[in-house]
Amino acid sequence: MSLNPSYIKPGLDFNRDTNYIQDRITRDGRDGWPVEPGRYRLVAARACPWANRTTIVRRLLGLEGVISLGLPGPTHDKNSWTFDLDPGGVDPVLGIERLQQAFFTRFADYPRGITVPAIVDVPSGKVVTNNYPQITLDFELEWTDHHRAGAPDLYPEASRAEIDEVANLIFHDVNNGVYKCGFAGSQESYERAYDALFARLDWLEQRLAGQRYLVGDTITEADIRLFTTLARFDAVYHGHFKCNRNKLSEMPVLWAYARDLFQTPGFGDTIDFEQIKRHYYVTHVDINPSGIVPKGPDAAAWLAPHSRADLGGRPFGTGTPPEAPLAAERIVR
Amino acid sequence: MSLNPSYIKPGLDFNRDTNYIQDRITRDGRDGWPVEPGRYRLVAARACPWANRTTIVRRLLGLEGVISLGLPGPTHDKNSWTFDLDPGGVDPVLGIERLQQAFFTRFADYPRGITVPAIVDVPSGKVVTNNYPQITLDFELEWTDHHRAGAPDLYPEASRAEIDEVANLIFHDVNNGVYKCGFAGSQESYERAYDALFARLDWLEQRLAGQRYLVGDTITEADIRLFTTLARFDAVYHGHFKCNRNKLSEMPVLWAYARDLFQTPGFGDTIDFEQIKRHYYVTHVDINPSGIVPKGPDAAAWLAPHSRADLGGRPFGTGTPPEAPLAAERIVR
Repeated sequence: MSLNPSYIKPGLDFNRDTNYIQDRITRDGRDGWPVEPGRYRLVAARACPWANRTTIVRRLLGLEGVISLGLPGPTHDKNSWTFDLDPGGVDPVLGIERLQQAFFTRFADYPRGITVPAIVDVPSGKVVTNNYPQITLDFELEWTDHHRAGAPDLYPEASRAEIDEVANLIFHDVNNGVYKCGFAGSQESYERAYDALFARLDWLEQRLAGQRYLVGDTITEADIRLFTTLARFDAVYHGHFKCNRNKLSEMPVLWAYARDLFQTPGFGDTIDFEQIKRHYYVTHVDINPSGIVPKGPDAAAWLAPHSRADLGGRPFGTGTPPEAPLAAERIVR
Repeated sequence: MSLNPSYIKPGLDFNRDTNYIQDRITRDGRDGWPVEPGRYRLVAARACPWANRTTIVRRLLGLEGVISLGLPGPTHDKNSWTFDLDPGGVDPVLGIERLQQAFFTRFADYPRGITVPAIVDVPSGKVVTNNYPQITLDFELEWTDHHRAGAPDLYPEASRAEIDEVANLIFHDVNNGVYKCGFAGSQESYERAYDALFARLDWLEQRLAGQRYLVGDTITEADIRLFTTLARFDAVYHGHFKCNRNKLSEMPVLWAYARDLFQTPGFGDTIDFEQIKRHYYVTHVDINPSGIVPKGPDAAAWLAPHSRADLGGRPFGTGTPPEAPLAAERIVR
């Protein structure tokens, strides 16, 4: 998500800047950004776990036809994510080379990190929001008129309090917890984050032993938020961020849960392990100065049977799985 | 072993300087250093895999009463291992603070790395040798008059060619192979070393599936040389050196083989995981600039049953296991 050039502050805990552009795209357009098919472009690097939430939700809800997707490459310089994977290094819809340009078009002196996910208003070239926790909720609640037939309810009204509560614990201890381990400025800070992370993973291991999904018996926003961290755990966080009490693959319940989601349409088809590894190992020069990217582990393990269907559950509730990804968005393995 | 201040040479393979002081301590004293109980001090940091060979062999052969042991701390500066664990930071027998002093007493302008293991002649304070592959062989072949009753034959004459051959493969691909991964100066160099390492581990996994030890049916020098790298694999090499196709604990045969040795007197009682982790993560500032030491994995897994006795084999041949370590040399866990 962020691109602070110096990730570790000696002596200090990692402190994520959670001030984002708060504008929302809503049905009533109260912030000046009404829901409108074809108007907005989601910019979401494959590498980034926070951006990954939005690509999963967009897939599950079938919003691909109404919100286009810009894909910056896995690495970035200290100032911006870049469209280096596109022909000529230019996003074909926005016509820009650096995501920073969309932020500067909106605010000439934007002082914070140029982060993904970001949604850009295509006609004006201005970034609308990079407030990732709200983006997926708005996809779920504001864009309903444009959901595909059979789209699941990822934020069911009756479960929202529980989803929010679980997601909040997961954010602090797991999603951001791995960063607190990796970017700790002291041994004590690292160990505190490590203990909280694995205590929470143990708690999740127990919670998921008897139920297929985190809240209720269908996939919700809570599962999506946990999944994007689990998908990166063994490939990156275990080694690079020193989250090494054990690999995810050594926690039988969580590992089966993660594989179940990975093998569900809309999840694994958004994951590009090569880009994920390149991002962390190349970008974080203060933890991996050599820039060498580990070759392991073998991602094929994600395709092993998981037997989670035995727990029951209805992945999409009364809905259906999404179609295959758009040809241009397919990940080549 | 070595303490080159800059481990990675951009663009280049890791190239270990294998020029050591070649003098030998022999029965006939032909290099001026005759076998003599009480005369020599072995300096061997717990952290170092090459030094660890010598502490295991000294234990197995019961040489503790005739060759004393100096223990530098796990970290060192760019010039020397230091006796920072000893009272006043001074080795109580040699009376020096830095191992470098014993090298300089021998050669005033010694130009190479100050490495462990090293053997120091106590009366003169001069280092005799740091040529680790020869040190253990000489313990086995030259010090026989001083072996304990029941000491095993770790380098049996009939098996020497096979031990040398296996040990040579293990040296290049595994013992030094993990360093070639961790200190690779390019992505290509890293991947080459990684492929060779895991191909060799797969080969070992097969070789050890039907036999308890590497050569013959007793513990030999070959097992000792493999063990000291395996003992550090999950704690350090998997993450720090990016040897992450899998953990040792994910290779069932090799992992059981390593636990079998760990649980054999003379092996596990020389292993200090805290010192091992501190050494690598603190000393290698060019791969871990933060100096933060990972908390995992849990070393208790080394004590799990291994069932390798079902394969038969006689760990000590016609000999017996060593006694418990000397009180002063016991590792507190």
